[in-house]
Amino acid sequence: MTVFYPEAHDWAAILARPEQHNEEPLTVAREVFEAVKAQGDTALRRYTAQFDKAHITDFLVTPAEFAEAEKLADDSLKAAIRLAAGNITAFHKKQLSAVVEWQNPQGITCRQEPRPIEKVGLYVPGGSAPLFSTVLMLAIPARLAGCKEIVLCTPPDAQGTIHPAILWTAAFCGVTKVYKAGGIQAIAAMTFGTESIPKVYKLFGPGNRYVMAAKQLATHYGVAIDMPAGPSEVMVIADETANPSFIAADLLSQAEHGKDSQTLLLTWTPEILPWVEQEIERQLNELPRKDIAKAAMENSRFIVLKDTDTAIAMANEYAPEHLILCINNYRALTEKISNAGSVFLGNYSPESAGDYASGTNHTLPTNAYAKAYSGINMDAFIKKITFQEITREGLEYLAPTLTNMAENEQLQAHSNAVKIRIKK
Amino acid sequence: MTVFYPEAHDWAAILARPEQHNEEPLTVAREVFEAVKAQGDTALRRYTAQFDKAHITDFLVTPAEFAEAEKLADDSLKAAIRLAAGNITAFHKKQLSAVVEWQNPQGITCRQEPRPIEKVGLYVPGGSAPLFSTVLMLAIPARLAGCKEIVLCTPPDAQGTIHPAILWTAAFCGVTKVYKAGGIQAIAAMTFGTESIPKVYKLFGPGNRYVMAAKQLATHYGVAIDMPAGPSEVMVIADETANPSFIAADLLSQAEHGKDSQTLLLTWTPEILPWVEQEIERQLNELPRKDIAKAAMENSRFIVLKDTDTAIAMANEYAPEHLILCINNYRALTEKISNAGSVFLGNYSPESAGDYASGTNHTLPTNAYAKAYSGINMDAFIKKITFQEITREGLEYLAPTLTNMAENEQLQAHSNAVKIRIKK
Repeated sequence: MTVFYPEAHDWAAILARPEQHNEEPLTVAREVFEAVKAQGDTALRRYTAQFDKAHITDFLVTPAEFAEAEKLADDSLKAAIRLAAGNITAFHKKQLSAVVEWQNPQGITCRQEPRPIEKVGLYVPGGSAPLFSTVLMLAIPARLAGCKEIVLCTPPDAQGTIHPAILWTAAFCGVTKVYKAGGIQAIAAMTFGTESIPKVYKLFGPGNRYVMAAKQLATHYGVAIDMPAGPSEVMVIADETANPSFIAADLLSQAEHGKDSQTLLLTWTPEILPWVEQEIERQLNELPRKDIAKAAMENSRFIVLKDTDTAIAMANEYAPEHLILCINNYRALTEKISNAGSVFLGNYSPESAGDYASGTNHTLPTNAYAKAYSGINMDAFIKKITFQEITREGLEYLAPTLTNMAENEQLQAHSNAVKIRIKK
Repeated sequence: MTVFYPEAHDWAAILARPEQHNEEPLTVAREVFEAVKAQGDTALRRYTAQFDKAHITDFLVTPAEFAEAEKLADDSLKAAIRLAAGNITAFHKKQLSAVVEWQNPQGITCRQEPRPIEKVGLYVPGGSAPLFSTVLMLAIPARLAGCKEIVLCTPPDAQGTIHPAILWTAAFCGVTKVYKAGGIQAIAAMTFGTESIPKVYKLFGPGNRYVMAAKQLATHYGVAIDMPAGPSEVMVIADETANPSFIAADLLSQAEHGKDSQTLLLTWTPEILPWVEQEIERQLNELPRKDIAKAAMENSRFIVLKDTDTAIAMANEYAPEHLILCINNYRALTEKISNAGSVFLGNYSPESAGDYASGTNHTLPTNAYAKAYSGINMDAFIKKITFQEITREGLEYLAPTLTNMAENEQLQAHSNAVKIRIKK
């Protein structure tokens, strides 16, 4: 679909995302949660047999299985993962929060200190391909933050095994507690704890609608989650300096994720559009996941706008998970971008780079959540505690303020806690 | 209740919080949300009449009403609020996130840049006393972060007015969009938007069980919230250098918040306990909110432990909203505190100081959420966007890694997006 110069009042309709229906997944999640809460490993085994067709005795991956994965994992892939991990580690390390301190000369010291979340649960989805990149994107910041207990759950195949690339990457990142459990039942296990799988304080990672519903449900039981999620998205903004074959490749790399993937192309130079279309057609035919990508591309939107500012305004309105700027003056525009997950600047920064190895995290807010949420970064694995230390002189200075405010809020005991110290 | 030297396996039971039953509030919230979503202001007016006994034509507080509040608000209270705001502003300003940049010499630049959440909704509860301190704690960081649209909802009294201290504080903090709406209906209005009240991206602020259920429900409609919440809590750790009358005052200032307030006192010097009890009795009788405080104190727990380390371990297990260390060597212990909302150090740092004016924020995680959540700080009003800029040389360096990883994850189009750029 190509839209030319839409009026502002039509933007909402043009940018609309597919509606999420999560009632059915939530209903299933409630049932599985109740069962895992009540029966622990027994329920976990039953659901693993039912959903993953795997009969698991011990959920915890053994040292022997890790050793086997070390042998089986491909050497060139190991080298690639090492290089990616180096960049991801370097950029995430820079994000570590420092202690913040403020002193008031009257005798008040306030400090904010970061602390790792002690117990975190990482979820790595199953499926036909091993998503070792998800392991990197979750385990590296968890380790850097200093999380003490890092639990990783991922569904086994029908033979009860986990792909060696997943296991090797987990071990490489220092994660030793890997459990053969997936889907809602894994999220429930990390929410309540079972005989095998520890309870955690915060859950991370992508998944299908069932996993997402389970994470949402986990928040009702006191467990935090990284962020809500919907289908993956890319928005490309291109001008006459963009290369149509690059744009096509970027749209298709989003489209191959799933039929519900969202792809948008914004431009003020409509001359490029026929070239992009032609390139899409050419490249699409060669893709192994052609059917998925084709279905996703049918919902693709090309939007012609009058100028750069309008395009940036539309990007901010849509708040894309991935935003690619294939435009000449992108440096002047970055500060105007207020809502996006991750931004790719220039003709040589494809989304694939951020998906794997540029150093940024690929776990990003979809579904316009970028208006309020960040992608995963070091903050996601820590919390910040405030400390205050007040001298007697400091409290004397604050006392009239505190007692006045407390009494105006009709909290006499709050006022007394100050008065009793001052009159001593 | 006093517990002496409990065994580790009894800790969970001793530290148990009252169970939260939120089914009934959630049911009411669902109904109100549906109505406000469908009927906007009409439903808002109906619920405001029903729940607040107020008949409101225009929800937005007018400039004339602000001018009237300026006249009515007490001058000494204004001075107190100004001093408090100065400290809160100074400490929060220090927390502002800087841009993080990392460069790889091969031609990759990654940046993380903070951006304000553009539209935020602040909720200030009603009740017998005006909670102007909540206005300070939410509006100051929202303004400092640079949020463009700051909406404040607070319930009117039966005459349809808002307390002048609330209005004056809002205006003082630069918040002009104050709406006379409270409870679930206000949260629903900020979730969906009505003819009067704008939709926001993130909701902040305390409230009763109904407001909390409404905030939880708002997350199902794509709106973020600051944090979940339960009853307020304080844990005091005291040694022989603590003053029993100070401890009693601190416990009571928590207890006067509500009958479900949680108060815990940990010590390894049980000699102080009779003195604390005597002081509680003496101070309690003079409180206007004696009945509430007394009911809360009936659930208070005094716990005698063998040493400092055990007390700190128990604090970390409980993860109190407020932790007061009335002990001699508190400086050596702060780094061992891993789970708490805000910590008060020494004999002259009462909780009241942080509630109003020390500079720290008083919106803090309760109900053990401090294991995964921070109290409100500047991060709560921003999100961080990542940017990556890769040169052609940088992409050539990354290419073998990217194509190898993408193909091992069976994402051929991801690999193509790299290859097509390199072979150009």
